[in-house]
Amino acid sequence: MSTITSIELDLYRLPLSEPMGDAKHGVHTDFEVVTATVTTADGHSGTGYTYTGGRGGHAILALLEHDLAPMLLGRDAGDIAGCYDDMLWHIHYVGRGGIAAFAISALDIALWDLKGRRLGQPLWQMAGGQGRQCQAYFGGIDLNFSLERLLANVQGYLDQGAEAIKIKVGRPTLAEDVERVARVREVIGPERPFMVDANYALSVDGAIEAARAFAPYDITWFEEPTLPDDYQGYARISEATGMPLAMGENLHTSHEFGYAFEQARLSFIQPDASNCGGISGWLDVARQSRHYGLPICSHGMQELHVSLVSAQPNAGWMEIHSFPIDHYTRRPLVLDQGRAVAPDSPGIGVEFDRDRMAPHRTGGARLGSDSGAERQQHSA
Amino acid sequence: MSTITSIELDLYRLPLSEPMGDAKHGVHTDFEVVTATVTTADGHSGTGYTYTGGRGGHAILALLEHDLAPMLLGRDAGDIAGCYDDMLWHIHYVGRGGIAAFAISALDIALWDLKGRRLGQPLWQMAGGQGRQCQAYFGGIDLNFSLERLLANVQGYLDQGAEAIKIKVGRPTLAEDVERVARVREVIGPERPFMVDANYALSVDGAIEAARAFAPYDITWFEEPTLPDDYQGYARISEATGMPLAMGENLHTSHEFGYAFEQARLSFIQPDASNCGGISGWLDVARQSRHYGLPICSHGMQELHVSLVSAQPNAGWMEIHSFPIDHYTRRPLVLDQGRAVAPDSPGIGVEFDRDRMAPHRTGGARLGSDSGAERQQHSA
Ligand SMILES: [Mg+2]
Ligand SMILES: [Mg+2]
Repeated sequence: MSTITSIELDLYRLPLSEPMGDAKHGVHTDFEVVTATVTTADGHSGTGYTYTGGRGGHAILALLEHDLAPMLLGRDAGDIAGCYDDMLWHIHYVGRGGIAAFAISALDIALWDLKGRRLGQPLWQMAGGQGRQCQAYFGGIDLNFSLERLLANVQGYLDQGAEAIKIKVGRPTLAEDVERVARVREVIGPERPFMVDANYALSVDGAIEAARAFAPYDITWFEEPTLPDDYQGYARISEATGMPLAMGENLHTSHEFGYAFEQARLSFIQPDASNCGGISGWLDVARQSRHYGLPICSHGMQELHVSLVSAQPNAGWMEIHSFPIDHYTRRPLVLDQGRAVAPDSPGIGVEFDRDRMAPHRTGGARLGSDSGAERQQHSA
Repeated sequence: MSTITSIELDLYRLPLSEPMGDAKHGVHTDFEVVTATVTTADGHSGTGYTYTGGRGGHAILALLEHDLAPMLLGRDAGDIAGCYDDMLWHIHYVGRGGIAAFAISALDIALWDLKGRRLGQPLWQMAGGQGRQCQAYFGGIDLNFSLERLLANVQGYLDQGAEAIKIKVGRPTLAEDVERVARVREVIGPERPFMVDANYALSVDGAIEAARAFAPYDITWFEEPTLPDDYQGYARISEATGMPLAMGENLHTSHEFGYAFEQARLSFIQPDASNCGGISGWLDVARQSRHYGLPICSHGMQELHVSLVSAQPNAGWMEIHSFPIDHYTRRPLVLDQGRAVAPDSPGIGVEFDRDRMAPHRTGGARLGSDSGAERQQHSA
């Protein structure tokens, strides 16, 4: 029994070096990171976290501070499955997706980090151990870039050793999208995998038309062509065009992934551990992906997903997202001939540079105590 | 154009007179109410609100304060559909159900209240105008009551003029549930409609077994026999037993209701305006219910749902929930020979007794301003 005695929460609003846009989330100028550090009576600690695109961070912090963290104090940090299940049920009436999924993710990841540090095991081993490297692609948030700027951005990815590239689509006209796809294909050459992402901007019929127009450019997948809730709409796009489809960043519960696997005719699945229940939630999706025979990929959070994706027997592509997280961590992403390499240090292998983040802190809370007296109280 | 110039938010934690239990939410000792009052430049105002079972209130308040209310300042309060759509999209990445659905509900209801007050129209007229009265049943949160206490509670409902009764099921053994169902049926007589509610405590197979055991007691519906996410599981229960099924209190988006209508073989639908997007969200579900030929019912929030249900051509049963909201409003629920009567005053017809609530206030915020200078600023 490794009793949880304190939980420290911090909310940061981190600026982007330039505004970034996609088809449905508008323009991002900042992103939010909420961190949760869990400490146990026997002196171990672990840090987890979640992201937003700039909205909802305070609500995530409030749910952690007032509902989830108080419930975890006094519990056994080693019983990750039990804690995960209890968190889901504790806030079930206001949960099942949305803010709750983000908040639970932060605490779940903290428990995995703590476990790895205590056992001296890196995440890639705890998560399956199949390997330490995986395929990775660079994903631009580049919809509002001019064509010139888009091509320069793609060239920048190639200069960093990119093995594969994804761009946003969903410009005002399909002709513009097609031109951008065609020109990017020229720049990256015929061999490199190339994905497009509409952030669900299109109707099903619009997506069918777009998929047909993109097909000549050898697209590895068409990501979120339409609303993530419309599983059967995805199936219609797949059936009508044969275009491989991908989604997952907007699915938050095991049930939602179940429907996507059953009904959406996807070719790739892209869970995000920051919003699908942390490492426990992500590994649940990975299990489902093996059952359904799909490669497991990831959205965002590459500093952590590199360990999760590499560890799977059916590893697909890891996204290298555009948010500048490397600026705020101690280990920037390591690429080896275009492949991403997982950290080998105990725990999740992600350590934040709190000095750099401090000027951007916009909230936080500390629950429980390290003192002997209160520790006893909590573990009673 | 009726520009929104200020929004006032308050969070209350209201005590129950005794702990109340159901099968999956544990024991309630309090409930939370979050209110949102929207004021416009032309001097009108409206108040909306949402509920929780005691968890998540601070997160709802935070999402309102930091994300939704700032977005609404300066907008036209008269464009409810536009405001509703913008709220859904503004927090889409952290939204689509959960905390977001509760927060959006509070603001949407405020806009409807404001509209009614400005036009001098009561909600039952704005929401369809079909009628001012509806069938109502008393729903107990009585799972942890002894059999004696349960029967006394039911008798109390009959003494208040109850036309129909619902009890909780999901006791440790099915035999206990069946005994309670049988005894309650004795007390209420053979004619009164009688519903049971498992709060999704059962597996699909367990629900099939229970439905068969309850059938001799003429059950009007079996509510939430299993997980609300398992639409096809509901269909299996319906197909295997012919028992009429009901759910809705845990569906939060138009898509979720769409799947329930399409796949779950329900006989009744029970949206809750406090968590399905307010009055706009509830009326969307009502539209869907007409399309699918189901009676439209409601969960909780009777002081407001009485107007919504009464107004529909396919009105079903309104739940009279056990939370003591009448203690905190100016117009306790009016029953006329067992039927609930909608208020006829302009707006939603729900006015809180802030003096009574004040001792239980646990948070709040005020955004915008009534002053002329700042009003201009917001409406620029
Ligand atoms: Mg994407
Ligand atoms: Mg119920």
